[in-house]
Amino acid sequence: MGERVVTAAVIIIGNEILSGRTQDTNLRDIALSLGERGIRIAEARIVADVETAIVAAVNELRARHDYVLTTGGIGPTHDDITAACIAKAFGVELVEHPRIAAIIRSREAPPNIMAARLRMAMVPSGAGIIENDAGSPPGFFIGNVYVLAGIPHVMRAMLAALQPKLAGGAVVLSRSVTAYVGESPIARPLEDIQASHPDIDIGSYPFVRDGRVGTTLVARGTDAKLLDDVIVEIERMFATVGVQSVRE
Amino acid sequence: MGERVVTAAVIIIGNEILSGRTQDTNLRDIALSLGERGIRIAEARIVADVETAIVAAVNELRARHDYVLTTGGIGPTHDDITAACIAKAFGVELVEHPRIAAIIRSREAPPNIMAARLRMAMVPSGAGIIENDAGSPPGFFIGNVYVLAGIPHVMRAMLAALQPKLAGGAVVLSRSVTAYVGESPIARPLEDIQASHPDIDIGSYPFVRDGRVGTTLVARGTDAKLLDDVIVEIERMFATVGVQSVRE
Repeated sequence: MGERVVTAAVIIIGNEILSGRTQDTNLRDIALSLGERGIRIAEARIVADVETAIVAAVNELRARHDYVLTTGGIGPTHDDITAACIAKAFGVELVEHPRIAAIIRSREAPPNIMAARLRMAMVPSGAGIIENDAGSPPGFFIGNVYVLAGIPHVMRAMLAALQPKLAGGAVVLSRSVTAYVGESPIARPLEDIQASHPDIDIGSYPFVRDGRVGTTLVARGTDAKLLDDVIVEIERMFATVGVQSVRE
Repeated sequence: MGERVVTAAVIIIGNEILSGRTQDTNLRDIALSLGERGIRIAEARIVADVETAIVAAVNELRARHDYVLTTGGIGPTHDDITAACIAKAFGVELVEHPRIAAIIRSREAPPNIMAARLRMAMVPSGAGIIENDAGSPPGFFIGNVYVLAGIPHVMRAMLAALQPKLAGGAVVLSRSVTAYVGESPIARPLEDIQASHPDIDIGSYPFVRDGRVGTTLVARGTDAKLLDDVIVEIERMFATVGVQSVRE
């Protein structure tokens, strides 16, 4: 209430997500983790491994949000172009980061393999490190853009290191109430509840479980007291419609 | 080769995806289904339940791609604003579609519930229907924008009705080869294979399975013969590096 809302955008980089080969799970992990810090994901984009697309998305979104997080494209192979794209987006050179290079060199390898690994030490000039305890090289950040791996367990390691360092706002709290009723019988009274509580965001999510139609109402907001009041109103509304409801 | 590439964009509408409450699976289903028709998802966006964000994404992406598919926000509750946003994006009125209204009216309900259900018959003027055999009202399309439900089984029913009607291009074929080796030992020879086959897109996807590091190489292209040649080169490359590989 009056407090500034802190927002982030996520850019998921990878042809394998757009082709349907791979199911992305990183967005959800990032959203839940940043949510704990009071940082809201305002939008997300999934872009191809194409320089112009990545550069455009990075520049548009870093101007619009407090943070931009990217996933994918930071390995040692020819299709890993994220670092070069971020450098281009910021108009800086790609340079070898001494500490990343030292980490990579600490693990012995034949010269050709070492040369490939050292590609992962090339970051935009001025970039800092995002620690990674998953055994592969660290991620990096420049300005408000944070560059994470695409492999989920490596992404999570970097996210765990990064999250406590990001300044957030008020944490958005969430309460859910579920009842076995469709959306139409509750649409009108629910609209009234939403209209009288503009600071609470109420979402309605229908589902079918074991052949039965149900709806989960999710109320989200930063004021715990107000949220509890809204949940009580929602429970009363379900009772008025003649169905039992449960908090989840 | 010379044939025009047919592209689509996907817009996933919903706060519940951005908050991390819900794991999206619709993008992958859409990508696989359209892929069978030779339509490539070039980009995807996940946007909040906010009119300005939805309208901007629809107008930007419908100008840039052959098709735009949206998911989510077409139910009867206050947070279902997709139809109104699409109407706004096209600069047309929201009107009751006679056939959707008739479908809804064919299922009896008390007046207040019927009134809520009939919200789902309100579509942009000039919109056509996307059939839905999942028991809920149909989706709709206007221009090159196709509006589908967010609930996965309903989305899939609409997609199944829609997909055969979309004109596509050459189907992108995919072949995969996997070996238990990291990316760095193969990065250099793989780059050479990619460089000599610009019409084939080779992606390198490292993984850890049962504690062992491996890499899957995925070659994608429209020419089956060329794809087979590239796969043979990749297998030979794995053998040169000294590891066994399997086609998947």
